[in-house]
Amino acid sequence: MFEQHRETLEKALSAIAGRGYWSAYPESPSPRVYGEGAAERGKEAFESYLGKPFPLDQPGTGAWIGAERSPYGIDLGVTYPEPVADDLIAAAKAALPAWRDAGPEARALACVEIVDRINKRGFELANAVQHTTGQAFVMAFQAGGPHAQDRALEAVAYAYAAMTSSAAAARWEKPAKGEPLVMAKRFTVVPRGVALVIGCNTFPTWNAYPGLFASLATGNPVIVKPHPRAVLPLAITVQIAREVLAEAGYDPALVALAAEESNGLARTLATHPDIRIVDFTGSTEFGDWLERNAAQALVHTEKAGVNTVVIDSTDSWKGMLGNLAFSLSLYSGQMCTAPQNILVPAGGIETDEGHKSFDEVAAGLAAAVGKLLGDDARAVELTGALVNPGVLARVEAAPSLGEVVLESRAPAHPAFPDAVIRTPVIVRVDPDQPDVYGREHFGPVSFVIPTGSTRESLDVLRRTTEARGALTASAYSTSSHVLDQAERAALDAGVNLSCNLTGGVFVNQSAAFSDYHGSGANPAATASLTDPGYVAGRFHVVQSRRPA
Amino acid sequence: MFEQHRETLEKALSAIAGRGYWSAYPESPSPRVYGEGAAERGKEAFESYLGKPFPLDQPGTGAWIGAERSPYGIDLGVTYPEPVADDLIAAAKAALPAWRDAGPEARALACVEIVDRINKRGFELANAVQHTTGQAFVMAFQAGGPHAQDRALEAVAYAYAAMTSSAAAARWEKPAKGEPLVMAKRFTVVPRGVALVIGCNTFPTWNAYPGLFASLATGNPVIVKPHPRAVLPLAITVQIAREVLAEAGYDPALVALAAEESNGLARTLATHPDIRIVDFTGSTEFGDWLERNAAQALVHTEKAGVNTVVIDSTDSWKGMLGNLAFSLSLYSGQMCTAPQNILVPAGGIETDEGHKSFDEVAAGLAAAVGKLLGDDARAVELTGALVNPGVLARVEAAPSLGEVVLESRAPAHPAFPDAVIRTPVIVRVDPDQPDVYGREHFGPVSFVIPTGSTRESLDVLRRTTEARGALTASAYSTSSHVLDQAERAALDAGVNLSCNLTGGVFVNQSAAFSDYHGSGANPAATASLTDPGYVAGRFHVVQSRRPA
Repeated sequence: MFEQHRETLEKALSAIAGRGYWSAYPESPSPRVYGEGAAERGKEAFESYLGKPFPLDQPGTGAWIGAERSPYGIDLGVTYPEPVADDLIAAAKAALPAWRDAGPEARALACVEIVDRINKRGFELANAVQHTTGQAFVMAFQAGGPHAQDRALEAVAYAYAAMTSSAAAARWEKPAKGEPLVMAKRFTVVPRGVALVIGCNTFPTWNAYPGLFASLATGNPVIVKPHPRAVLPLAITVQIAREVLAEAGYDPALVALAAEESNGLARTLATHPDIRIVDFTGSTEFGDWLERNAAQALVHTEKAGVNTVVIDSTDSWKGMLGNLAFSLSLYSGQMCTAPQNILVPAGGIETDEGHKSFDEVAAGLAAAVGKLLGDDARAVELTGALVNPGVLARVEAAPSLGEVVLESRAPAHPAFPDAVIRTPVIVRVDPDQPDVYGREHFGPVSFVIPTGSTRESLDVLRRTTEARGALTASAYSTSSHVLDQAERAALDAGVNLSCNLTGGVFVNQSAAFSDYHGSGANPAATASLTDPGYVAGRFHVVQSRRPA
Repeated sequence: MFEQHRETLEKALSAIAGRGYWSAYPESPSPRVYGEGAAERGKEAFESYLGKPFPLDQPGTGAWIGAERSPYGIDLGVTYPEPVADDLIAAAKAALPAWRDAGPEARALACVEIVDRINKRGFELANAVQHTTGQAFVMAFQAGGPHAQDRALEAVAYAYAAMTSSAAAARWEKPAKGEPLVMAKRFTVVPRGVALVIGCNTFPTWNAYPGLFASLATGNPVIVKPHPRAVLPLAITVQIAREVLAEAGYDPALVALAAEESNGLARTLATHPDIRIVDFTGSTEFGDWLERNAAQALVHTEKAGVNTVVIDSTDSWKGMLGNLAFSLSLYSGQMCTAPQNILVPAGGIETDEGHKSFDEVAAGLAAAVGKLLGDDARAVELTGALVNPGVLARVEAAPSLGEVVLESRAPAHPAFPDAVIRTPVIVRVDPDQPDVYGREHFGPVSFVIPTGSTRESLDVLRRTTEARGALTASAYSTSSHVLDQAERAALDAGVNLSCNLTGGVFVNQSAAFSDYHGSGANPAATASLTDPGYVAGRFHVVQSRRPA
């Protein structure tokens, strides 16, 4: 079954090995790519969910819950079956043996089919992502769609590679006095157990798919617990997965939705003795709690981090400022990969446009952001809306943290008058204030920090990353020596580094199959999404041997 | 450097993929294999250590400690530098960057050189293993030598395969409007941090080498904390590793010995914030403690288990009894893989020698053990000596647990009059006494248990393995249907199964590169030694990208 996906799987396997550019799903929402009317049909499908119980045939308490409100100012009114944790887990356990027995290949191909159908419902999902995360539509389509689908496929490929790296059967023949000893051996992949995926508010699909598909492909049933503010994208995902699994003759209970209205369901599930894998994206506080308390499970977390930019010099003054301005503005800095601390020597930097003082760098950056977001109607298509009131509070508090270099604005959205939108605020903070810049201020808040030298900047990068973690780091220099030092600092601190980004590649964007998301080597995350370490603990191999 | 080991590494990589028979080091202690005089020189080298400070150039408190006593009745009198935990860890951390920068290949080849030199000192190590574990000499030579070396090499191969499964560099070229986006990327393996290996009393080398070499090959410095009763084999190992590392220009602090006299050093080290990996073999109690308390580290444990034999029928009555008798007797049942619970239908079984009642099966087994160990001088070469007083206490307490089928004897050792030696005791226990057979009685204690049917036997296998874990399971049947059911029970319970062993392959022996030791899928162990899951968490990949 699903033989048609074998080529996609093979290409994905090549891509994770070679790590060059590859993508299975086009990122353009153009009708030339996805067909005339696809966008309209997706929007209609999304709207058909509003104000109604979501069509999901899962057992539950009988109550239907849900209180999602779009950051663009509309209540979604979708409700979901309130789950009984023990029932979901029991159903998942009952579904496990047949899924295990299906074997790595059948599972991998079924997973690709799920991803494929998710892709076919891309516009419906894009609307759901937009109105739960606040992302602008194009970003919701891309990051919540093809990019998330690529990450899903990447996880399937890593899982398949890990499960098939050794032979599934072997003849063992040991020379011995007289007759050789001969045994026939079988090696069977067995899943770890029921998995839990805890989704986040900002990237419900992108951040949940790697864990979901890594667990499912390795044979584990998966319970998906979305963030209470971003249920719909994962409800649609779960619906699609259950549909494919049932069509293929498996128990749809292999994938289930555990919606909640912030009543602690994640804690209950994560510490249940039968939950054996937990994938989490969200706050450092809850991630640390999971790592300490879900001792019965393999726990992968992606938490907060402090992302740093070290500016030493540049041969593209305008390119650097434009690139940074975009990274600060995209989705109002509400990406776990967005830069926060911008370190610049107090004595200024050399550029292709001559020496620039620290103040000129700060002002240049402010001007670049201001220009990029000068037109409200265009600005909101880049910034999107603020995902929740916590972000708004941080933006409003930021001016008190130092000297404001760029004030935040509140552009009006032409289509959604109640949308909560803010442009980035940039604050100058001194290097002796690690209490301010040494922690994450999630949202459109960044700091420009004058340092004694680039060496000191790199020390700050190292220290903050080691102490609080980071998902990205960035450096600008025309000196290969400085870039080497930056690479060494990044290696020591265990953070992925981007150098001299002045064009169309941005530090906060990572490309599936090529870029690792996070590294697992600093406190911001326990694993990259996705690499061999991310999939290997999700299954074991059980062997059987008998004389041949 | 160490280019000469590339072929060995390649062969090991093929072996872990194909999982047929392969071994890098001959297991025969014959002079025809290891050379005339090798045995004698090894014994002399061992004896040269006795009653003296062990030659190890490590910093410490200044005190020299050690209280090893051979199970054969002699005090070793070897002393070791008492370590200062913080100093060892600081030295290891300082040694890390250069070892990381050496890269996967240089590290793997250096590890093979260490294993190779360990092999060259096989007789010296065999004496050390014999007089710390109580193993008979030949077993100490084989299990403590070539078999342990193969497991080390296997760990190096898995580590190397995992580190090199994706490209170390890539050119990424994404089609875009106008010019394509082109990035040059580098991907660097970075180790997790300082690793701790906590050795056990019974197999100090075999059980420590996988963790030691998996961590070292992936770039982590390793602190080796031997069991206080089995320091010498690991002290020699550490000495060799330091010697090779220093010769190759690395800091010998990459491998250090942390000897103790049971003063809680393992707890101190395992919970130190800078210890990032812990490998442990030993009691369930301490293993569980580590899993709960060493939250800052990746923890792999191998703990106690209850190994089960299900007897349904056989076409080789004598072969079955002889095979089981050997497995019960080898090293006095002091292997974590030795069978404990032997389940037989109360109504008896069919065999090639006709129907045998339950009592005939029990008596047949008792007779087979009695015959195998009938001659004291030959018996002790199979049983070895009891590793510690705890085992002796369990043997002595066993008769109170049920109806004795075979009494334990205390053969005299012709060479070591003070050796503590006991042959197996076999006790009949009813299936309604899971309080007795449902936990591990480590040592030469086994139970024959009459069950209602083979189906009930398989239920007991499943239940005890799920509840208390197991490293091995075994089944005898002439029915392929029953063997299939046994395989299913083993899969459900997550335990490796051996079927119809009646010849020269024994359930308690596993072959490196082919058999997995444990599965990680039941409470006896968190990982197999060795598979991808055992190595993958020991390192991360940190990337760097810049416009090409």
